[in-house]
Amino acid sequence: MSIELTLDEILKVLPEGKLDGDKHVGSLSGVAALDKAQSGDIAFLGNPKYKGQVASTAASLVLLPSDFVGLPRDGQCYLRVEEPSYALGLICRVIEERLFPPPSIGIHSSSCMENGVIVADSVTIGPFCHIEGGAEIGADVRIASHVHVGAFAKIGAGSRLFNGVKLLSRCELGERVILNAGVVVGSEGFGFDQVSGRHEKIPHLGNVVIEDDVEIGANTCIDRSRFAETRIGEGTKIDNLVQIGHNVRIGKRCLVVAQVGISGSVSFDDDVIVGGQAGFAGHLNVGKGAKIAAQAGITKNVEAGAFLKGNPALPYALAQRIAVLQRKLPDLFKRFADLDETS
Amino acid sequence: MSIELTLDEILKVLPEGKLDGDKHVGSLSGVAALDKAQSGDIAFLGNPKYKGQVASTAASLVLLPSDFVGLPRDGQCYLRVEEPSYALGLICRVIEERLFPPPSIGIHSSSCMENGVIVADSVTIGPFCHIEGGAEIGADVRIASHVHVGAFAKIGAGSRLFNGVKLLSRCELGERVILNAGVVVGSEGFGFDQVSGRHEKIPHLGNVVIEDDVEIGANTCIDRSRFAETRIGEGTKIDNLVQIGHNVRIGKRCLVVAQVGISGSVSFDDDVIVGGQAGFAGHLNVGKGAKIAAQAGITKNVEAGAFLKGNPALPYALAQRIAVLQRKLPDLFKRFADLDETS
Amino acid sequence: MSIELTLDEILKVLPEGKLDGDKHVGSLSGVAALDKAQSGDIAFLGNPKYKGQVASTAASLVLLPSDFVGLPRDGQCYLRVEEPSYALGLICRVIEERLFPPPSIGIHSSSCMENGVIVADSVTIGPFCHIEGGAEIGADVRIASHVHVGAFAKIGAGSRLFNGVKLLSRCELGERVILNAGVVVGSEGFGFDQVSGRHEKIPHLGNVVIEDDVEIGANTCIDRSRFAETRIGEGTKIDNLVQIGHNVRIGKRCLVVAQVGISGSVSFDDDVIVGGQAGFAGHLNVGKGAKIAAQAGITKNVEAGAFLKGNPALPYALAQRIAVLQRKLPDLFKRFADLDETS
Repeated sequence: MSIELTLDEILKVLPEGKLDGDKHVGSLSGVAALDKAQSGDIAFLGNPKYKGQVASTAASLVLLPSDFVGLPRDGQCYLRVEEPSYALGLICRVIEERLFPPPSIGIHSSSCMENGVIVADSVTIGPFCHIEGGAEIGADVRIASHVHVGAFAKIGAGSRLFNGVKLLSRCELGERVILNAGVVVGSEGFGFDQVSGRHEKIPHLGNVVIEDDVEIGANTCIDRSRFAETRIGEGTKIDNLVQIGHNVRIGKRCLVVAQVGISGSVSFDDDVIVGGQAGFAGHLNVGKGAKIAAQAGITKNVEAGAFLKGNPALPYALAQRIAVLQRKLPDLFKRFADLDETS
Repeated sequence: MSIELTLDEILKVLPEGKLDGDKHVGSLSGVAALDKAQSGDIAFLGNPKYKGQVASTAASLVLLPSDFVGLPRDGQCYLRVEEPSYALGLICRVIEERLFPPPSIGIHSSSCMENGVIVADSVTIGPFCHIEGGAEIGADVRIASHVHVGAFAKIGAGSRLFNGVKLLSRCELGERVILNAGVVVGSEGFGFDQVSGRHEKIPHLGNVVIEDDVEIGANTCIDRSRFAETRIGEGTKIDNLVQIGHNVRIGKRCLVVAQVGISGSVSFDDDVIVGGQAGFAGHLNVGKGAKIAAQAGITKNVEAGAFLKGNPALPYALAQRIAVLQRKLPDLFKRFADLDETS
Repeated sequence: MSIELTLDEILKVLPEGKLDGDKHVGSLSGVAALDKAQSGDIAFLGNPKYKGQVASTAASLVLLPSDFVGLPRDGQCYLRVEEPSYALGLICRVIEERLFPPPSIGIHSSSCMENGVIVADSVTIGPFCHIEGGAEIGADVRIASHVHVGAFAKIGAGSRLFNGVKLLSRCELGERVILNAGVVVGSEGFGFDQVSGRHEKIPHLGNVVIEDDVEIGANTCIDRSRFAETRIGEGTKIDNLVQIGHNVRIGKRCLVVAQVGISGSVSFDDDVIVGGQAGFAGHLNVGKGAKIAAQAGITKNVEAGAFLKGNPALPYALAQRIAVLQRKLPDLFKRFADLDETS
């Protein structure tokens, strides 16, 4: 990563920052941890436990929380901001636009736009895309190469579809939705009737609705619902290779880590956090703000605010306690055998 | 979902149904649960426990089991059928054809058909497909956009390949096979020889054979075999993001839920059911009709009809019993400590 | 699989092999296990426990370890080599080239090569590929259909990208790297700042670097790093549907089986082996040569050479011992109840 940002460019992004020190630090050319930064780098104090590293960092610009006490060295700047980590994020977005410049606006000549597609202003569609009739694409949407958008699908303004995304017929994305490469939205639900010893597919006539500011990780799959909709709530972030079954409803601002599996008709309230590889049996409710540890297996409703771990899932502290005791089982069995003998 | 079906259209799909009540219910415009249905909706009694909801449902048409006792209200129809859920499925297929009409038959001009491809009648191939030489595509096959069909691959009549499917060289699909978006059939097996401290890839010269009426979920991967074939038996249904290793043989009518992992050379008899995220070590046999709970870890052969849970996997009832006792470990350790002291 | 190889062709691949028996065995037309081979087949003794099958095999050519004692039957050849399994692999590569001949060298006319792509000699690029400006493609690279190569990505000589691979901007592949179908390299890391109750994406400005001789399985995802690089070490082999988070560093010659999940900033030393579906919490170190059993959940650093199992993960032998004792819990509880009563 090689960048060149001036202090002025940075102050433009963080106008409320309070600057201290040498305003002529020159151009900033990297981002690094406090203890690894060199002259020319930006560093930041995101976690108070690294406070002691600030005085000795060689970084030219240090982002600090507003209540930080101390003075920059010669040839160094301090910039005090509300949230140093987020402030760095804002700087990084400027760098991101330079490292990964968006392709020029317009529809690539190789793409296949069927009749009746509605495309707003400032849309970018890369090579080899297939947009079926009736699809609606909002303003400033960016669609990379090899993307399929099915008939009557809707994509809200500012959304971004990476390479090879498949957004199937009648599914809907809100604004500023991000679908990473290889995501499938609207695959058929896994539901069958048993008829004379065969599994007969149940048609899935519904769709998937993804609300504003949702992000979905690479190769994640979300099935369409049987009749109504599978819905992902506003601001929820889903990692790579996650499975979301038909008729699932995920609340707002949830975080779902990689390889989680959510069976059909599960419902999450808002602010649920799920660790990687956890699994949910069908038709469950998970209460607001619940936390589910990685690899947990959830087979019952989860109360709001609960923190569960294991399979079968238990309250976190109990699960930890039992894990400790399990390690003592060999000793317990031995002592019991001794006791049994002597009693 | 918005549909318009007349009662006549429905009776045409269910000619053996026994109709009772007002034949002038008008067009049916939705499908809903008994307690949520409104006038104009179709509802059905799939599970006897909702029997009590039939009398009060506002649905215009109610699908009922043939032995249901009761009379429709004014302006309502009862249609008694063998299996209400499956009958609804048949109606839904009609709706499906309207909501998701198949594209017009033919090969899209953008697709790349190499020399020597054999294509039967009534085949649909969407944009940007790549069909290599020697591939054979049966009658009525529907291939969506961005699909790759490798050299000498075979696709049986009536099969459907969704967007972005990769069916690699020499792999074979039976009739009416469905591959959902992003499925990979025929990737290289994960096998290596250790040679002077390096891992040397073992070539995988076999293929994958998928029998009639198999359905495979989005982004699932099935590896080709080393010499012969990886085989998926007739009527088996596999969910999204499942991993099936080289040389695996899956029997007929199995159900494999999302994110299951099946290692190389595992063999399933017919009618096996596997819950989500379960895993199988290599070279195992799983007997006919065995059931494996979600997240189970199978490291030994499984007897026919067994029902296993956990890792290490145990008979379901024993695993449940142990789970209950584990929760009592803190108490047991405490009581033991007391007893030990007093004894 | 149908092949026709002469003994001469085989000896050309294995020039150091010591041949015994009838040199006029005719053409070899298959590969099979010792006990299943028929006349015309090649068989091999890879595992000493099948030694007894050699004398009775009907194979026309048997690959044997150099210290094998015995004589071929009439019309049969023995070929003694250093490592029979690897020797078979070398023969199989010849067969592989015949069964799956590489497409002719050159760039398919349908592909979209942006300005400023640097392409070495003898490169093959299939239909519907999209190669962005600044990408560099080394000699003898083979790229199948529907592949996306992002801006300034680099692909080392002899690498192979299967169908539908997405290699995103600025990511780098060494020499002889294999990416199976649907692999995503360089997706955005899953990292967010909490800002006023929302999850704000942290830009990921780094890339993914994959060293020489790495192979990656179908639909596996590797996220780009926040600032520097996510790195996969030389000779490491990764199976299908694996998740590798941002900033992860995997050492050399590691083996990672299907559906493993590795959270952000995890670091593996060399020669680590991970069973399928295992998961790693973030920011861990895994020491050289450690082995992690399938489905294990790793939440702490792992020492070099350790062999862990379970979640929470324990040393393998202890985990096995505890698993045995757990099965005895019902009995222990019962005996304890009896004892408690009598004491």
